[in-house]
Amino acid sequence: MPSRSELANAIRALSMDAVQKAKSGHPGAPMGMADIAQVLWADYLQHNPANPKWFNRDRFVLSNGHGSMLHYSLLHLSGYDLTIDDLKNFRQLHSRTPGHPEYGYTPGVETTTGPLGQGIANAVGMAMAEKVLAAQFNRPGHEVVDHNTYVFLGDGCMMEGVSHEVSSLAGTLGLGKLIAFYDDNGISIDGEVEGWFTDDTVKRFEAYGWQVIPRVNGHDAEEIHQAIATAKANSDQPTLICCKTIIGFGSPNKEGKEDCHGAPLGDDEIALTRARLGWTAAPFEIPTPIKSAWDATAPGAQREAAWDERFEAYRAAFPELADEFARRMQGQLPASFGSDSAAFIAAVNTKGETIASRKASQNSIEALAPHLPELFGGSADLAASNLTLWSGAQGISSADPSGNYCYYGVREFGMSAIMNGISVHGGLKPYGATFFIFMEYARNAIRMAAIMKQPVIHVYTHDSIGLGEDGPTHQPVEQLAAMRATPNLHTWRPADAVESAVAWVAAIESTETPTALVFSRQNLAHSVRTAEQLSNIRKGAYVLRAPQAPADLVLISTGSEVTLALEAAEVLSAQGKNVQVVSMPCTTVFDAQDSAYQESVLPTGVKRFAIEAATKDFWYKYVGLEGGIIGMSSFGESAPAGELFKHFGISSAALVALVEAKL
Amino acid sequence: MPSRSELANAIRALSMDAVQKAKSGHPGAPMGMADIAQVLWADYLQHNPANPKWFNRDRFVLSNGHGSMLHYSLLHLSGYDLTIDDLKNFRQLHSRTPGHPEYGYTPGVETTTGPLGQGIANAVGMAMAEKVLAAQFNRPGHEVVDHNTYVFLGDGCMMEGVSHEVSSLAGTLGLGKLIAFYDDNGISIDGEVEGWFTDDTVKRFEAYGWQVIPRVNGHDAEEIHQAIATAKANSDQPTLICCKTIIGFGSPNKEGKEDCHGAPLGDDEIALTRARLGWTAAPFEIPTPIKSAWDATAPGAQREAAWDERFEAYRAAFPELADEFARRMQGQLPASFGSDSAAFIAAVNTKGETIASRKASQNSIEALAPHLPELFGGSADLAASNLTLWSGAQGISSADPSGNYCYYGVREFGMSAIMNGISVHGGLKPYGATFFIFMEYARNAIRMAAIMKQPVIHVYTHDSIGLGEDGPTHQPVEQLAAMRATPNLHTWRPADAVESAVAWVAAIESTETPTALVFSRQNLAHSVRTAEQLSNIRKGAYVLRAPQAPADLVLISTGSEVTLALEAAEVLSAQGKNVQVVSMPCTTVFDAQDSAYQESVLPTGVKRFAIEAATKDFWYKYVGLEGGIIGMSSFGESAPAGELFKHFGISSAALVALVEAKL
Repeated sequence: MPSRSELANAIRALSMDAVQKAKSGHPGAPMGMADIAQVLWADYLQHNPANPKWFNRDRFVLSNGHGSMLHYSLLHLSGYDLTIDDLKNFRQLHSRTPGHPEYGYTPGVETTTGPLGQGIANAVGMAMAEKVLAAQFNRPGHEVVDHNTYVFLGDGCMMEGVSHEVSSLAGTLGLGKLIAFYDDNGISIDGEVEGWFTDDTVKRFEAYGWQVIPRVNGHDAEEIHQAIATAKANSDQPTLICCKTIIGFGSPNKEGKEDCHGAPLGDDEIALTRARLGWTAAPFEIPTPIKSAWDATAPGAQREAAWDERFEAYRAAFPELADEFARRMQGQLPASFGSDSAAFIAAVNTKGETIASRKASQNSIEALAPHLPELFGGSADLAASNLTLWSGAQGISSADPSGNYCYYGVREFGMSAIMNGISVHGGLKPYGATFFIFMEYARNAIRMAAIMKQPVIHVYTHDSIGLGEDGPTHQPVEQLAAMRATPNLHTWRPADAVESAVAWVAAIESTETPTALVFSRQNLAHSVRTAEQLSNIRKGAYVLRAPQAPADLVLISTGSEVTLALEAAEVLSAQGKNVQVVSMPCTTVFDAQDSAYQESVLPTGVKRFAIEAATKDFWYKYVGLEGGIIGMSSFGESAPAGELFKHFGISSAALVALVEAKL
Repeated sequence: MPSRSELANAIRALSMDAVQKAKSGHPGAPMGMADIAQVLWADYLQHNPANPKWFNRDRFVLSNGHGSMLHYSLLHLSGYDLTIDDLKNFRQLHSRTPGHPEYGYTPGVETTTGPLGQGIANAVGMAMAEKVLAAQFNRPGHEVVDHNTYVFLGDGCMMEGVSHEVSSLAGTLGLGKLIAFYDDNGISIDGEVEGWFTDDTVKRFEAYGWQVIPRVNGHDAEEIHQAIATAKANSDQPTLICCKTIIGFGSPNKEGKEDCHGAPLGDDEIALTRARLGWTAAPFEIPTPIKSAWDATAPGAQREAAWDERFEAYRAAFPELADEFARRMQGQLPASFGSDSAAFIAAVNTKGETIASRKASQNSIEALAPHLPELFGGSADLAASNLTLWSGAQGISSADPSGNYCYYGVREFGMSAIMNGISVHGGLKPYGATFFIFMEYARNAIRMAAIMKQPVIHVYTHDSIGLGEDGPTHQPVEQLAAMRATPNLHTWRPADAVESAVAWVAAIESTETPTALVFSRQNLAHSVRTAEQLSNIRKGAYVLRAPQAPADLVLISTGSEVTLALEAAEVLSAQGKNVQVVSMPCTTVFDAQDSAYQESVLPTGVKRFAIEAATKDFWYKYVGLEGGIIGMSSFGESAPAGELFKHFGISSAALVALVEAKL
């Protein structure tokens, strides 16, 4: 039986070799955390390499994602479908071993990491999902939801602000099954951290309400084993295990130094390291006894089989709950959702209310959520402004996590990254809200959802200068353009309650694309639509006002400015012009329509004009150099909304004047 | 002599009245923090209402900026040029009392606040600037730089991640003159914070190395006075004074509740509050004895006069230092900067190196920084990647803050918001760096610099898929478009070392606009230029390759893709086409040129094509619907850079094919 050190050295060897072969990568963290990983994976981790999607597996997250070779080594060694050739292709095009762990690329990678701090945030989301689902589904004697979330993180994650947001919330919510390992190696890229990072991390996490296990020797298997036992024994608090480690452990000339953080060790140093570690196998070769000792396929299959038995007992006792559980874990909508949502949209259309789209959003949640127990809401301390609460919303707490809503506190980035973790965990469909401008605090987490193809739903209210007196720091200008530029992200800015309802349904039905729903603070007038127009909303853009004869010009608009376009159309129409008005709530969805439909909405050769209370430049994409744009080219101001639209010239009169000047 | 309570009640009355008149605003925080503010402003704050720009004033920052009426009340009462009519215009267009404190709108407002957490970050920057400048300029017996930074912050700021980043760094740097007041009122917008915020804040800040004064009664003037004395007595650590307060103090039915946070109290409740507080004056009226007691103009004038005397003594002893001090506080560049920088650009042009633009950036810093002692650098733990260090760079520390460089740690948002604080403080010109993608972590702070017209310099390296193996989480795609959409922000993406040098000089010479310098990881070939081309770089775009005859087409490009445009031009030229190649390193600066120049670069009616390894849609602005664009429409991948350009079709061949198809 190989020793624990030999098992850990297999990780070190593979990491050194793969980074060296790629001539690129980060050997330091895998070599430093190899012993911790060995104990965790060998002694504790409940997983099944043959089925990386087994629902009740423990989740493992490498928040310091640059150490990806640690994770790839673990997956390969323990028997996942990740071959030695995959490891040899580290960081190459189309490989399953990209530079950072990428969700969807590699079996066993639970979330994409690399942008520091977001891995721990995702892990908090996973642990939150587990706790909520356990409360919703488990019954006495039937603990079908019962797994830990383990996360590795380094100094970088600890310095990032988002680690504060999510660790604070994890403490408040008492996420007892979250166990984090702090790789306290004293080194970051700029060198020894004592010059810029002197936190008492133990004290800091105690302040968050965590159980903290200080001063664990990260190269002593017994200490690590005991620490994890202590962590698991505490079900009321998340645990931080502070591990003192040596970065690049084993490298005679580079261990303990920043040199080994982000560059290959070099052939000579690798040879010296192999000698020091007593590792005699050739590059990318793992001696059979070591590979056998690592192999987790047999115990993994047993674990899943045992859980399957438990689940069958659960199914026998609670057949309806079991069916619902299965549906939710598969991410399927209820069978009736299509008809329920269609009926809701029809009812909104009939009602024809003139309300703020944020209110229409709340009405949508109120109508749809009763059919969707997986819908899991929240707001970054703006519930009464974002209008995210509904009659069935129930906040979760440490003592009662059975609800469907999280009071995230003033933590936009944390919320968004937690939502990504909830989404990849499965079983819940998260929506979360803040003011649209504060999307910027969370910007990279939204991008991560798009990269990971997670259909999370962001509710952004207060969408423009239309929010009024709070002024330029609160008024979005360039944010719509920025969001629309992100691949695989659908940004909807509905013009009234009907479009708001359709946008919500689209967001819920999305399977691989996150959605940003951008709503107004102020009232928006209802537009009357034909059945065809109603169904075309879902296409992202449609003709809201058709001219009597072939169009002389097209007016394009979104959200609160659609009314202005319609007003301008009436004026221009009275002048004898044939005006087509296009409402374009989601440009990205419209871009995906076939060209015949696009041509019907924006006929070639007909001059186009756009009006939107946001940065102008985006609209050249649709109006070209010959058309015209009414929009913003500066920041907003603090004043009542009506005065601001006047002040910045966002008006039907300005649009009419522009058309007259250009046509 | 009015009592302290009466003086504090003046703030409460003005805040209630102004919010009520505006029918919008936040009375709760001003009413809750009025007593603290009264003690601080009456007993401690060193300022001169007649000269809000007096260099050695104490800085006061309201990080919970929604409580703006607290600050406006203080400024009005103590004698700043802010009249009662200004207060009556609270939140109205063109008023000096916008919804949130806006830098440049109101005398005495030191920084724009409202986006939570950034005020405390700005304050850390101010205190850092003070500490650095004191070390650089003070001499024994001549403490010309000697002032405190006071900051108020609430639960929202405490929850935001950026508060972690900057408070941690402030502790490490021992910013002893930073004194923060935590408005611990237990209420945030969603209600009582105990449901989502249970940090032991005392312990948390002790973990950062702060002095923490716990459990101060925020309505007891004596306790507050003592706490500030204790804070001032500690010159080695920043101090957090934790004040228990009652939000909306004085309102019989709303105090202590979220109801009074963000809405007018209503006429009835205001009447009840006036009665309870014993405040009998009419709305917007301040009894003369109270106004007189608040008036700080006489002591303020004395303070400044005393400092002037000290400065004259300093000037007598150290005339050169005094001149340098005056220059830097006025934000003037050295007289020789124009010739020094021109000589440097000429030398780079002559040298004609093919190097990465990040390396060209470092060369620029190395050349320019010796002439600019105010240049204050840093990186968020990526110095060796961003190449921000130069031979004269000296890191600051708690013990020796006399340097010109900050090791910010992995704190992108904190760094950027601190830079804003350094900039508004004056005396230093900050530049800070990270990978371009992690600009997103700091997005809103960059926007705040643009709103505040602060010429900070952001160095962003690793600008595209050209960074290679680190993969999609590290490869910018939509970030250039997002940055270019922000008003008053100049984003430069230079094509070679010469453009990099010009961009650096433009950034340094900017007075009211922040600059983002976006640099490559990989080498960029040098382009040969005429003198005219060289001087036109500064115009943001210019003809890098002129055709022999009137152009048949224009190829537009930036950064690493300029070479591809030049290659394509050669191929197309060989086909007999007259090709103009435009390098457009800064689109925003080009947009500000006169139309004759713009026409010379982009002649009307000539078909245009753009190539940039970034999101395509931005370029419709220049090529219109008839032109063509080579760019990205998805996220990147992990692979060597060369393979990625091939994989995503960012090549001269693709550009040639597109031109052939479209022309």
